[in-house]
Amino acid sequence: MGGMAEPATDSEIRAALAGLPGWERDGDTIRKEYERESFPDAVTFVVRVGFLAEQVDHHPDIDVRWRKVALALSTHSAGGLTVKDFELARRIEALA
Amino acid sequence: MGGMAEPATDSEIRAALAGLPGWERDGDTIRKEYERESFPDAVTFVVRVGFLAEQVDHHPDIDVRWRKVALALSTHSAGGLTVKDFELARRIEALA
Repeated sequence: MGGMAEPATDSEIRAALAGLPGWERDGDTIRKEYERESFPDAVTFVVRVGFLAEQVDHHPDIDVRWRKVALALSTHSAGGLTVKDFELARRIEALA
Repeated sequence: MGGMAEPATDSEIRAALAGLPGWERDGDTIRKEYERESFPDAVTFVVRVGFLAEQVDHHPDIDVRWRKVALALSTHSAGGLTVKDFELARRIEALA
């Protein structure tokens, strides 16, 4: 995913989130909390998300609270949300 | 580590933290931020901490910010810091 991503407009953000159930906008970030069956399942999910993140060089904030994993995505280099955030969220959803 | 752990006293907490470089008290929690060489190294560290945590059934809050991993330990069932927190912190230090 080389190159600069342009910040998405509000309507682009709304359209993208319509296809991402459970993901919510919080300013320049999109967030979702996933609950797994167990703590090992939560750690396993972090690893799976981690492989995706490293592959596209776009790294979510990841907060583990026992078997809950909260993810937050933003494109800091673009100062907002970009297609990189929505694409990674879609790939994470495909795991989940 | 079955059974109830007693909350540690302030002097016990100070003594325990003296042997845990980089760990700091924040009320009923002890925290440390670890910085790894890379994001994959950070995820690997989460997995190693996760195995220890599951083994002793005591689960830190884990916040991943690219290659930094912040850990926070508290014994919620005891309403404070206990030997379980300091023992797990020592085992994490032995990994790190």
